[in-house]
Amino acid sequence: MSKFMYINAFHVSILVLKVHMLSYDFCVADLSPSAPRVNGFPCKDRANVTSKDFLFTDFRTAGNVSVTGTNAYPSFGTVLQYPALNTLGISHVRLDFGIGGVVPPHTHPFASETLFVVQGSIYTGFISFDGVLYAETLQKGDIYIFPKGTLHFQINVGTGPAISFNTLNSQSPGFLVAANQLLLSNIPAAVLESSLGISNATDLNLLEASVPPFWG
Amino acid sequence: MSKFMYINAFHVSILVLKVHMLSYDFCVADLSPSAPRVNGFPCKDRANVTSKDFLFTDFRTAGNVSVTGTNAYPSFGTVLQYPALNTLGISHVRLDFGIGGVVPPHTHPFASETLFVVQGSIYTGFISFDGVLYAETLQKGDIYIFPKGTLHFQINVGTGPAISFNTLNSQSPGFLVAANQLLLSNIPAAVLESSLGISNATDLNLLEASVPPFWG
Amino acid sequence: MSKFMYINAFHVSILVLKVHMLSYDFCVADLSPSAPRVNGFPCKDRANVTSKDFLFTDFRTAGNVSVTGTNAYPSFGTVLQYPALNTLGISHVRLDFGIGGVVPPHTHPFASETLFVVQGSIYTGFISFDGVLYAETLQKGDIYIFPKGTLHFQINVGTGPAISFNTLNSQSPGFLVAANQLLLSNIPAAVLESSLGISNATDLNLLEASVPPFWG
Amino acid sequence: MSKFMYINAFHVSILVLKVHMLSYDFCVADLSPSAPRVNGFPCKDRANVTSKDFLFTDFRTAGNVSVTGTNAYPSFGTVLQYPALNTLGISHVRLDFGIGGVVPPHTHPFASETLFVVQGSIYTGFISFDGVLYAETLQKGDIYIFPKGTLHFQINVGTGPAISFNTLNSQSPGFLVAANQLLLSNIPAAVLESSLGISNATDLNLLEASVPPFWG
Amino acid sequence: MSKFMYINAFHVSILVLKVHMLSYDFCVADLSPSAPRVNGFPCKDRANVTSKDFLFTDFRTAGNVSVTGTNAYPSFGTVLQYPALNTLGISHVRLDFGIGGVVPPHTHPFASETLFVVQGSIYTGFISFDGVLYAETLQKGDIYIFPKGTLHFQINVGTGPAISFNTLNSQSPGFLVAANQLLLSNIPAAVLESSLGISNATDLNLLEASVPPFWG
Amino acid sequence: MSKFMYINAFHVSILVLKVHMLSYDFCVADLSPSAPRVNGFPCKDRANVTSKDFLFTDFRTAGNVSVTGTNAYPSFGTVLQYPALNTLGISHVRLDFGIGGVVPPHTHPFASETLFVVQGSIYTGFISFDGVLYAETLQKGDIYIFPKGTLHFQINVGTGPAISFNTLNSQSPGFLVAANQLLLSNIPAAVLESSLGISNATDLNLLEASVPPFWG
Repeated sequence: MSKFMYINAFHVSILVLKVHMLSYDFCVADLSPSAPRVNGFPCKDRANVTSKDFLFTDFRTAGNVSVTGTNAYPSFGTVLQYPALNTLGISHVRLDFGIGGVVPPHTHPFASETLFVVQGSIYTGFISFDGVLYAETLQKGDIYIFPKGTLHFQINVGTGPAISFNTLNSQSPGFLVAANQLLLSNIPAAVLESSLGISNATDLNLLEASVPPFWG
Repeated sequence: MSKFMYINAFHVSILVLKVHMLSYDFCVADLSPSAPRVNGFPCKDRANVTSKDFLFTDFRTAGNVSVTGTNAYPSFGTVLQYPALNTLGISHVRLDFGIGGVVPPHTHPFASETLFVVQGSIYTGFISFDGVLYAETLQKGDIYIFPKGTLHFQINVGTGPAISFNTLNSQSPGFLVAANQLLLSNIPAAVLESSLGISNATDLNLLEASVPPFWG
Repeated sequence: MSKFMYINAFHVSILVLKVHMLSYDFCVADLSPSAPRVNGFPCKDRANVTSKDFLFTDFRTAGNVSVTGTNAYPSFGTVLQYPALNTLGISHVRLDFGIGGVVPPHTHPFASETLFVVQGSIYTGFISFDGVLYAETLQKGDIYIFPKGTLHFQINVGTGPAISFNTLNSQSPGFLVAANQLLLSNIPAAVLESSLGISNATDLNLLEASVPPFWG
Repeated sequence: MSKFMYINAFHVSILVLKVHMLSYDFCVADLSPSAPRVNGFPCKDRANVTSKDFLFTDFRTAGNVSVTGTNAYPSFGTVLQYPALNTLGISHVRLDFGIGGVVPPHTHPFASETLFVVQGSIYTGFISFDGVLYAETLQKGDIYIFPKGTLHFQINVGTGPAISFNTLNSQSPGFLVAANQLLLSNIPAAVLESSLGISNATDLNLLEASVPPFWG
Repeated sequence: MSKFMYINAFHVSILVLKVHMLSYDFCVADLSPSAPRVNGFPCKDRANVTSKDFLFTDFRTAGNVSVTGTNAYPSFGTVLQYPALNTLGISHVRLDFGIGGVVPPHTHPFASETLFVVQGSIYTGFISFDGVLYAETLQKGDIYIFPKGTLHFQINVGTGPAISFNTLNSQSPGFLVAANQLLLSNIPAAVLESSLGISNATDLNLLEASVPPFWG
Repeated sequence: MSKFMYINAFHVSILVLKVHMLSYDFCVADLSPSAPRVNGFPCKDRANVTSKDFLFTDFRTAGNVSVTGTNAYPSFGTVLQYPALNTLGISHVRLDFGIGGVVPPHTHPFASETLFVVQGSIYTGFISFDGVLYAETLQKGDIYIFPKGTLHFQINVGTGPAISFNTLNSQSPGFLVAANQLLLSNIPAAVLESSLGISNATDLNLLEASVPPFWG
């Protein structure tokens, strides 16, 4: 009997007294156009934040791999789609692959990334800063890591569709597809011809026209 | 004809000339006891690094939920198990849940975390710094975020086993289970009795003995 | 005679010319509700900043130890009470202890902390991430350090009142009292029962009711 | 024939589909008085940013060395003069020196700095934290580095004008000229007399009057 | 009866199973000359760390104000004196003042600082980057803050000795006394004469000789 | 008479007493193979550091533009060539351009960069993360900025040689030339063909062979 002796009128009477030393534990992004523009996003009014803000359900359904030109589709969960990530340093991407589907070589300037295979078999790798390819074939449950800033790619090498769940350690990692940035961004022909060793304007035009424009 | 004009003897002859401005793109951890102790881990000799270093396969198999006392098991993929994560700011945990399985309330002092439901239905949430519970029931494909430093928990509320794939934005996030740190770490009884409002040494002893020791 | 030769009309005439390369040396917090919400606080208009903004006098007087239920009181000097701390990475707490007074085990997710004994004798320590207690009895003038994120506590072990002056290296360190976050934050009973190894709802209710609510 | 097979109607039809995962690659400063005051500057509306924002032409012309009292002039290219630097962590200074011209000993609290000699011969150096002078005479094309926070100075030791192009790794490095901060900032005479070992108010007044006021 | 049901043989049998996800919660500095030199200090072997490592008792006793030439003495508690501070981002200084004692104007390039008055009455302040003095007279219990990088000073304006307990948010804040760095560090006379507006070598020599050398 | 009163025997006698609170103001890199491998470089023994360590003279002479295949040459001043930069967050590149010379599109994953025109006329620009080209023609004395992580390029558009002095805010910025990373790093042909929209192995082989290999 009478265990937990502090249960008494005293405690009840001071229930309104509380330690109160608020830090910003979260800062759900306010994406409204009228919000002040800062480097990142300002915070949604805390009074309007609910538990639903922290939930992200877009990855329940597969992406449409037929629209990208490479038979693979990236569904993004960055701060733009998932405002609760603001200031918290994480974002995710769901990759869907048709047979032979490819996510073109790209970099994330602001994040390291891991790939976790949810379904299928994926060959993936990255190029180190000194030009060495580190790559492996992964199966369901495997993880591979792409160090921050390195160029990396994925290809479905299995006999059916593949799915991966990718993680980036920034809410806004950036996504620069090498071929598209290089060939579809109005860099002068003289620069591209010299950089690629192409002497022929027609060849450059053909190359530029062939790159799948979805990725740029 | 003659497209790509730079293919010529000149190029071949200067093949050994290369831009060389090495940064540390990666630093695979050297976990050997004789490595110097710094805040984190020094790097494995780059000459010994292979593509296998970046691959992590421990999550192919489920954890044994029967050994923890709460019918759930955390399989870790931090820098200790996956040395390639060193300096790259990401780690992962696979959580396996039996029916009703619980991961006790805990914090990661050094990381935000997301939970991605691979299988089943999980109720999860966190306590904000001002003591508000934000929680939801998640199904397969859903993500929830636990802001850095907040106390959070998981419970399998489905009718079968559940699996989640969790991400932390630190290679060494820390893992402090609140009940175990509080009750199983030799904090003096006088401190605990006052903090818990318990007047009775026997009650404290019973409470300490009941906490599942796996988690501490 | 005539030392300091540059004192001449020339200098006087160019007095208005000055090096001007302003950085933000300070950013006194604007705590008004109408200020934009960012992660932290925006700056008070510099034109309204005076030397009094940088002075904090709340610690001249002792806290009321009788209202917390543990015979100790924390007086805070974080950015909320002392807006000049904004962006500067420091805050302070004055702890007052009655005889046997206790500050319950707690963590600061965003800061390391030191405790400096101003009066009396205090037993204090922290739990390392691997569950080891590091603790000592301190006397006037002594300092102890609690590494960032670790659980720590204090108890007055002297024969009179005690006072400490604590420092945290964040203007908003967070303050999470383990027992209160765990037991007074609406975490479902099923989660708590499993985590604490308690089978009995009555026992959990009693435990929840006994925790001093001030600290949560 | 038929190289670059993907050039087809399919690609054209999906031209509007694009990867879109915007990070803040830049944040040109909005220096207008009505912009919210944060620690740094908010961003100019991206819709109003043009390529001219990233161009800085102020260094085409020399500074007027005759107005500073030390026969040298610093032209600044910090975020205040060059708003595109906002959040990008670089700024520049052009130094012009008459014969024997001096930039007085100063520190940048928030940046390391390099000096690149564009013209002439400059003797420059810094004082390490433990009071050691590291200094060299530089000629055109040479670089010297002043570690973050160290006191440093320059003097033209050539027979004609000199020019340097300096770099700081902060868009707002701060610029504190030691003599001017010490002697021209209303620090009480009692403090200065003790600190300088000067017993005589007249001497202090003379010293204060002789310091070139441009630099403070 | 039978409360805390999990107390049973099962729990005892799995006592050796534990969550193990070690982060570096602390890294006590290894100051031995044979330790590798990194930017900061490597960690003392954790096996040799005891609770005494985290205790600092040097501030129990007053400093000798008679040896500095300004009737004040700084006792340091940085990582060099208190190795447990390594990587934790805090250090402390105890200041003792005789009547009229002065701590000369100085900066800490790597830290903001607060001053807490333990005894007496102290006039203290800082110079903002744009040359404005912010200063106040403090009494026992008061705090003043010196923003990172700003020049600041203290003078005992009371009728007896004074003591302050100062905090810096870096384990190695740096300590640059303006007059001493400027005048006692072998900066060439031509640079100092121009910077101070002194035309006379004898005057400069006298000034250099008068500065209390303790502080440099 | 008797100015600077503190010049006396007292001061002389305490000359050996000095404030001593060493921070790491610099950490000249120890590039020797036997130095421990950490993420960056450990420090050269301070006893062996001289003022020459901080001086870099490699940019006195022009690079050989004839060896790169694009009529331009980058001379690097990163921590590998200039060890004093270690930990200080700056590096430099001298670019020499023949007529029409090109530095191919590339990124620096770890740094923002500015380009300062020393001689000639250079057209330069970057591609924002959303694919917009920002570019201008610069003349002597002009600066352009490439935000961190963005793809950028340079071309000499003048009638004679051109020289630029470039700055990066990292001692190890990384240097990834897009075409070379994409085409010369053993990425599987299937990935490249899909990413570039090339159906023909011969075309890919020709393209790979034409890229100037110096830049990879």
